[in-house]
Amino acid sequence: MRILVVGSGGVGDAVARIAARRVFFERMVVADFDVARADRTVAAANARDLARVGPRFVAARVDASDPAAITALAREHGATHVLNAVDPRFVMSVFQGAFDAGADYLDMAMSLSRPHPERPYEETGVKLGDAQFAADSRWRDAGRLALVGMGVEPGLSDVFARYAVDHLFSEVDELGTRDGADLVVLGDDGEPVFAPSFSIWTTIEECLNPPVIWEADRGWYTVPPFSEPEVFDFPGGIGPVECVHVEHEEVLLMPRFLGARKVTFKYGLGEEFIAVLRTLHTLGLDRTEAVPVRSADPAAPGSVAVSPRDVVAAVLPDPAALGERMRGKTCAGVLVTGRGRDGEPREVYLHHIVDNAWSMAEYGAQCVVWQTAVNPVLALELLARGVWSGAGVLGPEAFDAVPFLDLLSAPEPVGYGSPWTLEERTPRPAAGTATTPSTPSSA
Amino acid sequence: MRILVVGSGGVGDAVARIAARRVFFERMVVADFDVARADRTVAAANARDLARVGPRFVAARVDASDPAAITALAREHGATHVLNAVDPRFVMSVFQGAFDAGADYLDMAMSLSRPHPERPYEETGVKLGDAQFAADSRWRDAGRLALVGMGVEPGLSDVFARYAVDHLFSEVDELGTRDGADLVVLGDDGEPVFAPSFSIWTTIEECLNPPVIWEADRGWYTVPPFSEPEVFDFPGGIGPVECVHVEHEEVLLMPRFLGARKVTFKYGLGEEFIAVLRTLHTLGLDRTEAVPVRSADPAAPGSVAVSPRDVVAAVLPDPAALGERMRGKTCAGVLVTGRGRDGEPREVYLHHIVDNAWSMAEYGAQCVVWQTAVNPVLALELLARGVWSGAGVLGPEAFDAVPFLDLLSAPEPVGYGSPWTLEERTPRPAAGTATTPSTPSSA
Repeated sequence: MRILVVGSGGVGDAVARIAARRVFFERMVVADFDVARADRTVAAANARDLARVGPRFVAARVDASDPAAITALAREHGATHVLNAVDPRFVMSVFQGAFDAGADYLDMAMSLSRPHPERPYEETGVKLGDAQFAADSRWRDAGRLALVGMGVEPGLSDVFARYAVDHLFSEVDELGTRDGADLVVLGDDGEPVFAPSFSIWTTIEECLNPPVIWEADRGWYTVPPFSEPEVFDFPGGIGPVECVHVEHEEVLLMPRFLGARKVTFKYGLGEEFIAVLRTLHTLGLDRTEAVPVRSADPAAPGSVAVSPRDVVAAVLPDPAALGERMRGKTCAGVLVTGRGRDGEPREVYLHHIVDNAWSMAEYGAQCVVWQTAVNPVLALELLARGVWSGAGVLGPEAFDAVPFLDLLSAPEPVGYGSPWTLEERTPRPAAGTATTPSTPSSA
Repeated sequence: MRILVVGSGGVGDAVARIAARRVFFERMVVADFDVARADRTVAAANARDLARVGPRFVAARVDASDPAAITALAREHGATHVLNAVDPRFVMSVFQGAFDAGADYLDMAMSLSRPHPERPYEETGVKLGDAQFAADSRWRDAGRLALVGMGVEPGLSDVFARYAVDHLFSEVDELGTRDGADLVVLGDDGEPVFAPSFSIWTTIEECLNPPVIWEADRGWYTVPPFSEPEVFDFPGGIGPVECVHVEHEEVLLMPRFLGARKVTFKYGLGEEFIAVLRTLHTLGLDRTEAVPVRSADPAAPGSVAVSPRDVVAAVLPDPAALGERMRGKTCAGVLVTGRGRDGEPREVYLHHIVDNAWSMAEYGAQCVVWQTAVNPVLALELLARGVWSGAGVLGPEAFDAVPFLDLLSAPEPVGYGSPWTLEERTPRPAAGTATTPSTPSSA
């Protein structure tokens, strides 16, 4: 297997660092628009490479917005697989470039949505991944696989959902992805500062787009941003965090492959972060269209054009560089409700927690990007071994969850040494009956 | 009198529209970096000119950051007075340019402050106006006048303070400027939208700098932004608004010329606006230093440098253009506490209210910029008539308040037809004794 990773930001860098401990592939080309960044990733990965078969990691420059450039680079290196690790705005160009190169394709975020022109907070317009699923038959006919949404969320969350449907439930009411953390970033004075732990561009995109929900008897529909806040009690010492509906790939993927009455995604943004996102939106600083602004470069006066959202990203610290100053844990998981194999009401929270201190010590990668990056590497390993195989545009839940979850938990060098947990919770009364607050049981 | 107005933004434009109804000057040159903007102001003013002595208003282009350009333009037109109506970051270049041209000078905001390097929220560093007052003897020796802070706040507020000291009080505890409004801006759908009614650049500057307070036995000192929130009940139907300490020129001006135990400025920002400003500061979007950002201009790709605060200003609507969509009133005033001429405790709120509907109908100017602009025009008229005169760097409270307040209230064509109000309030107990909430009396 020869892998082309497009993008060496936080996640691409962690992909290389994780892959350096695995022997299932011959070569990994790490390409970025900023080749110096790719060089740094490749140097770190080669220095940590356990395969000891010569330098397996190679840096390259590529413009992710140019499908022909992706194709040319993939062909040059004989890439069998292209792993897309850039901002979701470049999904379609990398997806197309991989297809034209005859390579299989993986990503961690799907093609972008466009709100319904008249009723954005009631009906879906163009949905996440629609552009990719439209190409499904082309990929299938060519016998090539596009494994989409194969990060942690979407990705591991979809694997959890598949596992629950196959092995834990006879009937599923809701597949509810719930993501939360207790991360803080410390400033120079040791006091917490505001610093998002993941790409602010992507976070704004997913949080301010109309959140999508799926129900079996209604199909996909949307609600206003930050709808239905609920306090979810996260395990592992993280504790209660306010979660709200967010547009996310799981809601588009799971119903295509799994049976459930309802599919939701709620993100534990916390009150402070929700307030920040609301303000950015109120001011129009979330906008991506170019705005004319006075140049602040004395050597090049006049007017320049910038995207306000790019400016927001530029003033915030690079999330991938925050690892040393970050404290806490991040938790990704799926709350599954319904009836167990015995027909009794059941509620489980399948989840995976990464402690930043651990991922920094082991990989030099902060926990949020590490937790995202480990899943596509693991999926590539299952594909390399032939444990997973398929053709067409498929989500993670199209594959058997057991070998994935086993490999994730198994200690190194067999597995990735990062256990997941099944937590039984006290089932809530079914919808339509009187409700009382749920009391989470311990894991 | 020949006046050079530097800047034809909201306030400069309103200055010309107000001046068009007065006959005390021969010529007004309106200069802007964007000459098209100056042209629009001049066209509107000439069309409304009541003097009918030929076109009194002339447009010009000028770079306000270049003192030599200010001097050259002032000389070219034989300007006797330069009125500075640009962002406060250009105060020193316009101030210097006017001096070198041998012209008198007026502004509505003073030279910028710099926080104390170690204890920014306890001690003052470089204070507002320090750079200007340092030149006082030079202006005095030259027999030239620099009338600084001659807008509404500072400006009319300082005139109110002088009036209270001269005519209403025997002993002043506090001169407390209090500014509030009930303005809303309606969007295309008729619903209120977020749109600041004054330059966001200036608002960020004054609200995020350490607020300054003066006490007779302590001198000037600073506190953290948004300190000591209090709900102030504004008259004229505006009602209660949350006010917080803000860095403002009155606190630097009044103690230089008037006797009081304490001088404060509190701005009725309201909770929503305070939250927005806090968020901008948390994210670093209030910063003025250049930040490198990807160009969003396909014709000029690469990296450009912009000031984040300029980007915030660029995404928000131009406050001067909001008049048609604005509803409500703005109130500027000074709460004076102490002992009246009879020795009894007294509390008065001297204030001036402008209804946006009135200023739009009369002048085509929104109320906040109109209320700012009327005061320097009126001061220029008093200087032209010789009612006010002086040399050196002086604040509005260095001059007799009575002719100013009389001219403001008197109906046109004698006065400006915009009455002010003296509202008696129930005196609060003196500091150090038990306090009960004050109950405002009606005006």
